[in-house]
Amino acid sequence: MTESVVERIVVPAREGRAARVTRGQRFRVVDLEGSQVGDLFAFASVDVGEFASAEHTRVAISRLFPRVGENFVSNRRRSVLTLLDDRSPGHHDMLCAACDPTRYAGLGATGWHASCQENLQQAMLALGFQGVEVPQPINLFMNIPVHEDGSLGWEPARSQPGDYVELRAEMELIVVLSSCPQDMVPISGGGLSALVIELLDDLVEDLK
Amino acid sequence: MTESVVERIVVPAREGRAARVTRGQRFRVVDLEGSQVGDLFAFASVDVGEFASAEHTRVAISRLFPRVGENFVSNRRRSVLTLLDDRSPGHHDMLCAACDPTRYAGLGATGWHASCQENLQQAMLALGFQGVEVPQPINLFMNIPVHEDGSLGWEPARSQPGDYVELRAEMELIVVLSSCPQDMVPISGGGLSALVIELLDDLVEDLK
Repeated sequence: MTESVVERIVVPAREGRAARVTRGQRFRVVDLEGSQVGDLFAFASVDVGEFASAEHTRVAISRLFPRVGENFVSNRRRSVLTLLDDRSPGHHDMLCAACDPTRYAGLGATGWHASCQENLQQAMLALGFQGVEVPQPINLFMNIPVHEDGSLGWEPARSQPGDYVELRAEMELIVVLSSCPQDMVPISGGGLSALVIELLDDLVEDLK
Repeated sequence: MTESVVERIVVPAREGRAARVTRGQRFRVVDLEGSQVGDLFAFASVDVGEFASAEHTRVAISRLFPRVGENFVSNRRRSVLTLLDDRSPGHHDMLCAACDPTRYAGLGATGWHASCQENLQQAMLALGFQGVEVPQPINLFMNIPVHEDGSLGWEPARSQPGDYVELRAEMELIVVLSSCPQDMVPISGGGLSALVIELLDDLVEDLK
C-alpha cells in the first residue's frame, strides 16, 4: 500500500484554512519551510459542539501529547484522530491557548494582528458555523518544554523544511489549520511561513 | 488585619456547591479530612461565557499552575482569581478534564456514577444557568506528576486534614466546587470526603 495526495491545501503564513476529512482518511500537515507552528483544530462534522479536546486526550493517554499510534479524543471522549506518523523532531504542544487579539494587545501590538483564534473563526464561518467554541489547539511543531519546577519554556520550533505529521480521521471531521501568526514570541523560529494540508488516498499496489 | 469566616459552605463527598463571591473577596477551599480532590470552577457573574481557563492561565504565567501571588485568568485573558496562600503540599492539577459519566463508563462503572461535570451542571442549573461550558477545572489537591517523558502520574492527593488554599476573586464570580467522586482511580487517597468553602471577611483589628 502506498498513497497519493488527492488534495493539497496551502495555508499561507498568518492564515487559516479548513478541510473536510472523511472517516478513515489520512492527511498530513507539512511544515514547508521549517520552524513554523501550526494550530490544528478538529470538529465533528455532524455536530461541531464535539471537537478534539486536549484535556480529555491527556486523561485518555496519561500523557501531555499522543505518541505515534495513540489517539486524540473529543470532549465526549470519543476517538477523533490517530497520530500515524511523526516525521519531525517530535515537539508539539497542547498546553497553550490559541493566540487571539487580546494576547497580541498584551504583548504590545497596536492595531489589528492576525491570530489563530480569528483564523479558526473565519474558516468555520466560511462553512456556515458561527460562534464555534475555540478549543485548546493541537499546536503542531510548537516547542514548549515543561521544566521540573512546572515552568514552561517558549522555544523556537525545531521542525525542518518538509517535516510533517500524519493523522487519520476517526470520524467525519472538519479540520482547521492555522499557520500561527505569532511573531512577538519567537516560537516560529525562522520567520512566518506556509503550511500544507495533504489529504491522502490509499492505493492498493499489488492487485494481482 | 485578620479575617473571620462569614459563610461556610460544606460540599459533601461526591457533591457540588456554588457560591457567589464579590470582587476582592477572599475565600478558602479546605480539605477537611485530607487527601480529597476538589474541582473548582469560576465563572464571571455578569457573563458565564467567561470563566477561569487553564490554557490561558498557563500562557499568562508560563507555568502549569500558579504559584502563590499569581493569577488564574479567563478565556478572555482577564484576571479571575489570585492564589493568596497554599497551606497544602502544593500539588494541584490543571491538565485533566472533569470526570463525567463517559469517563466512569470507560472505567467499568455500571449504572449512574456521580461526576464533577454533573455536579457543575446541577449547581449552575440551580442558579438558572442551563448548558454552561464545562471548562478544564482547577483540580485542587490533585497530584498528577508530569514525568520527563511527558507521561502523567495518577497519585493520591497528599493534602492533610485541614489543609487549604486561599484565593481572592478579581471579578464578581460564581464559583463551583465539586468534591470529586472519583473512586475508580485512587486520586483521593483515603476514601471520598467533604470539602468546605469558607468565605472570608477582612476585619481591621487596630482601629485606634
